[in-house]
Amino acid sequence: MKLAIYGYGNLGKGVECAVKQNPDAELVGVFTRRAPETVKTLTGVLVYSAQDILKYKDAIDVLIICGGSATDLPAMTPVLAKDFNVVDSFDTHARIPEHFANVDAAAKENGHIALISAGWDPGIFSLNRVYASSILADGADYTFWGRGVSQGHSDAVRRIDGVKDARQYTVPVEKALEQVRSGSNPTLTTRQKHTRECYVVAEEGADRARIENEIKTMPNYFDEYDTTVYFISEEEMKRDHAELPHGGFVIRTGKTGLNGEHRHVIEYRLKLDSNPEFTASALVAFARAINRMHERGVTGCKTVLDIAPGDLSPLSPEELRAHML
Amino acid sequence: MKLAIYGYGNLGKGVECAVKQNPDAELVGVFTRRAPETVKTLTGVLVYSAQDILKYKDAIDVLIICGGSATDLPAMTPVLAKDFNVVDSFDTHARIPEHFANVDAAAKENGHIALISAGWDPGIFSLNRVYASSILADGADYTFWGRGVSQGHSDAVRRIDGVKDARQYTVPVEKALEQVRSGSNPTLTTRQKHTRECYVVAEEGADRARIENEIKTMPNYFDEYDTTVYFISEEEMKRDHAELPHGGFVIRTGKTGLNGEHRHVIEYRLKLDSNPEFTASALVAFARAINRMHERGVTGCKTVLDIAPGDLSPLSPEELRAHML
Repeated sequence: MKLAIYGYGNLGKGVECAVKQNPDAELVGVFTRRAPETVKTLTGVLVYSAQDILKYKDAIDVLIICGGSATDLPAMTPVLAKDFNVVDSFDTHARIPEHFANVDAAAKENGHIALISAGWDPGIFSLNRVYASSILADGADYTFWGRGVSQGHSDAVRRIDGVKDARQYTVPVEKALEQVRSGSNPTLTTRQKHTRECYVVAEEGADRARIENEIKTMPNYFDEYDTTVYFISEEEMKRDHAELPHGGFVIRTGKTGLNGEHRHVIEYRLKLDSNPEFTASALVAFARAINRMHERGVTGCKTVLDIAPGDLSPLSPEELRAHML
Repeated sequence: MKLAIYGYGNLGKGVECAVKQNPDAELVGVFTRRAPETVKTLTGVLVYSAQDILKYKDAIDVLIICGGSATDLPAMTPVLAKDFNVVDSFDTHARIPEHFANVDAAAKENGHIALISAGWDPGIFSLNRVYASSILADGADYTFWGRGVSQGHSDAVRRIDGVKDARQYTVPVEKALEQVRSGSNPTLTTRQKHTRECYVVAEEGADRARIENEIKTMPNYFDEYDTTVYFISEEEMKRDHAELPHGGFVIRTGKTGLNGEHRHVIEYRLKLDSNPEFTASALVAFARAINRMHERGVTGCKTVLDIAPGDLSPLSPEELRAHML
């Protein structure tokens, strides 16, 4: 399959690396809104101007759109789905139905297929929620995130006066995880599920007590959590917090039997050294499925819930049945 | 959807209980090869003779076949797939391609759909192996089973002279699990991955040392494992080992990045109080998918790798996108 990348940030770079690991995938190029000559790719793949993308219509089987969910993807994906089979990682849960409707209408205009929200949450975590809740009909779902860097929360801290740099980690509370695993179906508040850790480089002479207070009381972002603030040096930030790890847990506990006498725990865990590279790896696998479904004549917008697992694998159905089932 | 159960052992009883938890499912009846009047169901659902099943052809949307994999299912599923949409939990991994071919040909004769091997391994574990290996292309897969009762191994111990009753637990080795999770891609021998625990009720006057030795040296079943044998009383067996718990882990670790510099761990865990009831719950969810696919005109044999996750859920695609994605 011939893939192309639209947007070349951390996620686009991750897709570039992931394609190298998949012998059935080939990278046509990177499309950027910046001046192409200013962009240097990791593997030397060619860079084109986003404006010229229609010229490459016939050369691309699936276009992987690597933009942000706040403003990029809601605009980009519907436009590009008119002329390409596309995959994105749109992750604003509340706006998925709206994004789906826009992309579905656009993709159907010229018989294309699109897959939205194909990262890990939404994405792989979503499918685990659906599998688990479909099997254990009488039960409760829990999703925990972390330990990992939240870019949105890091950005929020950086906007505080006197903050030079910041990194925010979301941390699941081990005690809450244990309660959930026990099958006791606990009702957990936001504060009980996750804590937040902020590593902050303050500007010289800045009032650290004020910064700490502003962080801890910030509405929506921190006020409902127990937050710990650590002031560190620029060197420490560079040395210890340059990576973007993440992960989390999807757990469902449920009961079966004539009177619910048996308990079951389904637990799915991700532990990721690099959030963007893992997301990118998922996008490439789902691009494979989208390409196959397009060849079978499927059109319109899909989500990971519409994709049969076998379509993600480079192995044939016969190989999968013989070796993976 | 109107379901029926073919075969009424532990698994069939589990399906009966699972149907109660799914308001969109209705149980037409239980079909048995025994004399129907000798079979009493848990919930009072009607019992019919297996010989009469063709009379109920139009009343059943999906027939869930609850037989053993050694001799029952290879014979039953192809025959029944000619006249019914069927689901089974065939679990002899090595014979899946052959079973698939037989069931596929039979199902296509009259436009039916069949799903084979829809338990947890093969089944849910299989899909996790496929998802994880498709996403992390450069990595290694590990499956661990337990702690749980292996019926096959329990039966093998029961066949030893002087053994009145026995229960065998397969136990994953915690150290091996930790090595795998560390991402070090260890090569593990059979002995390093699992231990075996046998609880044995010996007949009065039986030579316990001989029994223990016969267990530990039994080819294929025990000789490649570290096995511990505990002799217990009949009362202890009844009190402490009446249940059929099971579970296990599917773990894939892999690398991403330009030079494989980032490591990732995907871990899926099941912890089940009742192996047959959990398997039964999976069968009912997959029966829902099969019923929907039949309504869309899909025919032939499928495995869990061919089923889109959304088809398993009682929720509509719109509800899933709004609430579960």
